[in-house]
Amino acid sequence: MKNYKLTVQYDGSRYKGWQRLGNTDKTIQGRIEQVLCKMTGENIEIIGSGRTDAGVHAYKQIANFHTSVELCLGDIIDYCYRYLPEDIVVINAEEEDTMFHSRYHAKGKKYLYRIWNDKLHNPFMRKYSFHIKEVLDIDLMRKAASYLVGEHDFSSFTSLKSKKKSKVRTIYSIEIEKENKIIDVVFYANGFLYNMVRIITGTLIEAGTGRIEPELIMEVLLNKERSLAGPTAPPQGLVLLDVEY
Amino acid sequence: MKNYKLTVQYDGSRYKGWQRLGNTDKTIQGRIEQVLCKMTGENIEIIGSGRTDAGVHAYKQIANFHTSVELCLGDIIDYCYRYLPEDIVVINAEEEDTMFHSRYHAKGKKYLYRIWNDKLHNPFMRKYSFHIKEVLDIDLMRKAASYLVGEHDFSSFTSLKSKKKSKVRTIYSIEIEKENKIIDVVFYANGFLYNMVRIITGTLIEAGTGRIEPELIMEVLLNKERSLAGPTAPPQGLVLLDVEY
Repeated sequence: MKNYKLTVQYDGSRYKGWQRLGNTDKTIQGRIEQVLCKMTGENIEIIGSGRTDAGVHAYKQIANFHTSVELCLGDIIDYCYRYLPEDIVVINAEEEDTMFHSRYHAKGKKYLYRIWNDKLHNPFMRKYSFHIKEVLDIDLMRKAASYLVGEHDFSSFTSLKSKKKSKVRTIYSIEIEKENKIIDVVFYANGFLYNMVRIITGTLIEAGTGRIEPELIMEVLLNKERSLAGPTAPPQGLVLLDVEY
Repeated sequence: MKNYKLTVQYDGSRYKGWQRLGNTDKTIQGRIEQVLCKMTGENIEIIGSGRTDAGVHAYKQIANFHTSVELCLGDIIDYCYRYLPEDIVVINAEEEDTMFHSRYHAKGKKYLYRIWNDKLHNPFMRKYSFHIKEVLDIDLMRKAASYLVGEHDFSSFTSLKSKKKSKVRTIYSIEIEKENKIIDVVFYANGFLYNMVRIITGTLIEAGTGRIEPELIMEVLLNKERSLAGPTAPPQGLVLLDVEY
């Protein structure tokens, strides 16, 4: 049994997210599986490092799959390039040992959340950023973010739909940079709960507008109550940047 | 009679270009005119600094229109922002004297042509760049470009459909920069003929791959024969950056 690891880049705009649902045409996992089934003649199931929601993008998503067919790595890339739609690209393929599992073995992840901060939106950024008209104070956002770095129970910052037993994660860093009208928030953690980046971003934006005090974040964290945090920022600003093993 | 000047930004991917054709829904000019007609109650015709082809983008296209209705500049921006589709944004409005004409009075224009130079295409760049797999030598491209700077008859570098009497234009500069996998070619001239930037880019790419010698450009220019130049590069890599008055 062979185990291949794929690095996948995609523009999530047209898809219902990573995870295959009934209809395989609308998810990224489904589209890639269709192509690999055709290539191997086997029923392939790929395992992603995590699911991304509808509209969320990836520069480097990692996935792996098992097959009894021995494949040439270059052929996997070429075949996917030829048969996948142009908004999904397998940029690398490697062979791993049979035990490698892209979700269980992920040790760290990086996400970018991009905000377009100007009175008017930008036609080129509309599918790749969240438009905030009010001027955001990035020092207030940085202050608010500082309380979240470290090991915490992030129950307040995950969707109530989250089924994970432990809500404890370690955020290594949250870096916030502004260049012209773009504010980039880069999250680096050992893992993220469902909607965690989007809820944290929504809350940091509340701090950046002055609607909440940065210090409030500490209370929100301690209270473990989703309703105390800010709204969930929309998916199109979010990009999975990298997965570490 | 009032004369208003608009600065317009658009993602041209979904449109049949700037210039209104029968069906006003599919052109940028048509979409803006519809909104201004609704706003003024008059039959508005806008004059663009030049037409951009189907799929070509603009960071700063300039247009003007006459109306007997006195408008508040902020209202023009707000009204357009509310009623235009989100891939067309009027980012500025100014009042000009009645004689101002955005095409006749344009003194210079800047265009960017963006090339994605890598084996695989990038899902985020597919609508905003031309994908070239072969490694391009930008020194050869710069050498080729150098022969085009200055005042020349650009008959060889325009579509046979061009109806302009004089094919003489002055290119002030062609700057070619590479950053990672992106090659940006920025053209600055007193004006451009139909398809001129795209045909020059197609020819510079021929030089960059080594298929033609950079020196050949001089001959192509002197022969005034379209068939000697390279192919027309596709529209999606092209962006109108600025118009000078």
